[in-house]
Amino acid sequence: MASSTPKYANDGLAGFYAKVDELESTFIDQVSELTPRYATGLGDAVRIPSISAYADRRKDVFEMSEWVATKMRAVGIDVRLKNLGKQDGTELELPPLVLGRYGKDPEKPTVLVYCHYDVQPASFEDGWKYEPFEMTVEESGRLCGRGTSDDKGPLVGWINMMEAFQKAGLEVPANLVFCFEGMEEYGSFGLQGALEDEADKYFSDVDVVCIADVVWVSDEQISIPQGLRGIIFYLVTITGAKQDAHSGGFGGQISEPMVDMVNIMSSLVDSNGKILIPGIYDNVQPVTEKEYESYQKLKISEDSLYGGTGGRGLHDNQADALIARWKKPSLTLHRIENALPGAGAITSIPAKLVGKFSIRTVPFMKAEEIDHIVRKHIQDRFDTLGSKNDIEIEAHPNDWFHEDASHWNYQAAIRATRNVWGVDPAMTCEGGSIPIALDFKKILKKNVLLLPVGRPTDGQHSTNEKLDKSSYINAIKLYGSYLKEAETLWRESRKKL
Amino acid sequence: MASSTPKYANDGLAGFYAKVDELESTFIDQVSELTPRYATGLGDAVRIPSISAYADRRKDVFEMSEWVATKMRAVGIDVRLKNLGKQDGTELELPPLVLGRYGKDPEKPTVLVYCHYDVQPASFEDGWKYEPFEMTVEESGRLCGRGTSDDKGPLVGWINMMEAFQKAGLEVPANLVFCFEGMEEYGSFGLQGALEDEADKYFSDVDVVCIADVVWVSDEQISIPQGLRGIIFYLVTITGAKQDAHSGGFGGQISEPMVDMVNIMSSLVDSNGKILIPGIYDNVQPVTEKEYESYQKLKISEDSLYGGTGGRGLHDNQADALIARWKKPSLTLHRIENALPGAGAITSIPAKLVGKFSIRTVPFMKAEEIDHIVRKHIQDRFDTLGSKNDIEIEAHPNDWFHEDASHWNYQAAIRATRNVWGVDPAMTCEGGSIPIALDFKKILKKNVLLLPVGRPTDGQHSTNEKLDKSSYINAIKLYGSYLKEAETLWRESRKKL
Repeated sequence: MASSTPKYANDGLAGFYAKVDELESTFIDQVSELTPRYATGLGDAVRIPSISAYADRRKDVFEMSEWVATKMRAVGIDVRLKNLGKQDGTELELPPLVLGRYGKDPEKPTVLVYCHYDVQPASFEDGWKYEPFEMTVEESGRLCGRGTSDDKGPLVGWINMMEAFQKAGLEVPANLVFCFEGMEEYGSFGLQGALEDEADKYFSDVDVVCIADVVWVSDEQISIPQGLRGIIFYLVTITGAKQDAHSGGFGGQISEPMVDMVNIMSSLVDSNGKILIPGIYDNVQPVTEKEYESYQKLKISEDSLYGGTGGRGLHDNQADALIARWKKPSLTLHRIENALPGAGAITSIPAKLVGKFSIRTVPFMKAEEIDHIVRKHIQDRFDTLGSKNDIEIEAHPNDWFHEDASHWNYQAAIRATRNVWGVDPAMTCEGGSIPIALDFKKILKKNVLLLPVGRPTDGQHSTNEKLDKSSYINAIKLYGSYLKEAETLWRESRKKL
Repeated sequence: MASSTPKYANDGLAGFYAKVDELESTFIDQVSELTPRYATGLGDAVRIPSISAYADRRKDVFEMSEWVATKMRAVGIDVRLKNLGKQDGTELELPPLVLGRYGKDPEKPTVLVYCHYDVQPASFEDGWKYEPFEMTVEESGRLCGRGTSDDKGPLVGWINMMEAFQKAGLEVPANLVFCFEGMEEYGSFGLQGALEDEADKYFSDVDVVCIADVVWVSDEQISIPQGLRGIIFYLVTITGAKQDAHSGGFGGQISEPMVDMVNIMSSLVDSNGKILIPGIYDNVQPVTEKEYESYQKLKISEDSLYGGTGGRGLHDNQADALIARWKKPSLTLHRIENALPGAGAITSIPAKLVGKFSIRTVPFMKAEEIDHIVRKHIQDRFDTLGSKNDIEIEAHPNDWFHEDASHWNYQAAIRATRNVWGVDPAMTCEGGSIPIALDFKKILKKNVLLLPVGRPTDGQHSTNEKLDKSSYINAIKLYGSYLKEAETLWRESRKKL
């Protein structure tokens, strides 16, 4: 921002201060002025139960897409609903990708903004304090309801930002391309194909991507994630007899797939979390001393570090725990399932089993090499058993993600966070994968920023989802500030070229 | 039978011949004469859908108890319906034990006959060829319908036998005590308590027990089982975090119960069926050369030997396979279940698991010793893992059963089989356990005979249950012949004393 006339503006919401220049000051004042209206807009969005997972709610997801399009048009966005066809061979229509464009100024950067307008399932009977699809504003300022944090709050925030710029008589500092999805909570059907479709068309002039669907690393630590672990999901099928057999009649007499399965699974990882597959750690990047120290300093409570898992931690200090989550691969044994329909009598010998495990990968592990050594390890182990059963191995890889934080896209987000919240964000990682981040990166080949708004305890996929009012209002400010900083840094980067 | 005037009577049903004395000849002729009526009686029994597993069919189980009692009274049996109270803390009334007595002649042995009048669930939609609760007689003579083989055919057979003796003007050769159960297919609730109740009362004068609820060892091999394996069912619970965690967020960071579980399970048994727990085989009786040879000679098709399991056999010849099923312990790993309700997301780290396995035991393994070495083995293994999780072990033992076949009860059955089917039965075992056999043995302390009628492919617990007409009619003859032989041998045994 390189502000010449800095001032500190207390928004009176969370005790944070923003250090801003005049343009931003005007914008921020406008956001504060409009604040009383913002709850109404989000409340209207929450009221539409756009649950993508349930077929009988699909009409509500469509209604939500119309609601979003209407709001976008109201602030002058040129909207296009992109039809995604039917869901995976079913007769169920996929909700459209709500695309939008605003501005075409060659003197401004073009930022693609991603949010999603569908939500996780929710019903009052699951143990909600309030009706999940009727937003309740608590005295403390918590906005309670399904989707407030994930991801209707952030989505509506972008539209509010546009309105604030316009009401303040200011230009929006960047050209914007919107990509609002309606199936994020249920497999993102159709998104990848649509990105491939539009990469050289609708998205051809995009400079950077901003995904507004993440949360801070902890409730206390403002952060921007720079990396995500990948995942290779494995299904190991072991087949014995044609059908389940009674263990009284056939125990000791026939080959039992479960014996091979637990043997193979027990050879993959030990009780301390160490993966036992030879070569698996070969391309894992070592953690620098500087990273270690910075991880140790992050403000993360014991509770945030171990979530609701109640301990059973494998590490004695915060840095080691975070390194295990962010910088090292892990292997989790998920389950062993009976693969025959209707099978599973209490004393049966299961005839066909599917063992499911996954490996979380980190830079710079190579998915193909990993897959090769995993398959070899399993096959070698199986061969030593002398089993009469058959084995099949199936893998579903999703690569890790690691972004260059020195890019102006990240630097703009870092500066905006400082402007709005008054502190530098920690550069962190996520242990889980966000497939859409990788999709945008691989298909559009642009720098992809994950810009957090909510807190990890917002209850995004559980009961009593909320968004703190400070998070909601500061998101609007953050988006505006991010675009302004992006414009500045983009111009500087062009001069250097 | 030590018949003075043997004759061979072809019953025209299955090509078998019976070698009988005069009394039996008269009885058998009477059975043949009454044959056309027998199908009607069994059809009436099949028509009542006395499914004990379904609460809403309980009234039908009660109706069936009344039907049985009426039929018993019609042949002069003194019936008593023994109330068994409510089902396991529910408000559901248990169907009565239908008890009956016939004869009190001190010059005859007193034989307790056990059958059950409840059936497994069945519905046409499951893939039945005919309506399961409307008996269909095929041209080939197959009596098709739920319960024909298990266990209404055998039960009605005993009543038919009484009628045939009476119509032929003959005395029934033994005093009879009937014990017909209505909950056999759903846990035999209340039976054990009732046996304990009546051991010194209603059952005080019982000399031997005959359980008519088993089948031959194979369709081709007429047999009488002399032993049953026991079972110790284990539940191993491993508890980690308070709730399931996401493997992206927490993989590598927290202790995973599934890792300990597969490690422990893999230490119990190998892929060749060998149990790896030290000391487990210590009290297992060696198989004699004679037994080995006799097993090798049994008429058991590959199909019967491996049931519908489609091979994957661990043994190269029949005797080894049968020894593995009858004379050796086996350990089956049944499953690993998620122990928290609602848990089990595809990429979760399960927080609490129950691993289920069972050990089939044989003479003369000692359940308490086995339990001790199993627990020690698991705990030792767990201790080596250095796991942060907790472990609990729960065991449910049911002892093995092995009966003295030199007793007159067995010898009478062997002779009767020879009389009716024209061949010596093979003395076999069953790999599975029949808890009621052990209950009768432990509580009444009398010789317990398991007297087969049907064939293993009768479909007792699956669709298209049937009883061959030859099996049904020969069962009636077998019961009469068994009682006559029992009377003779009992008298001889008394003389020896």
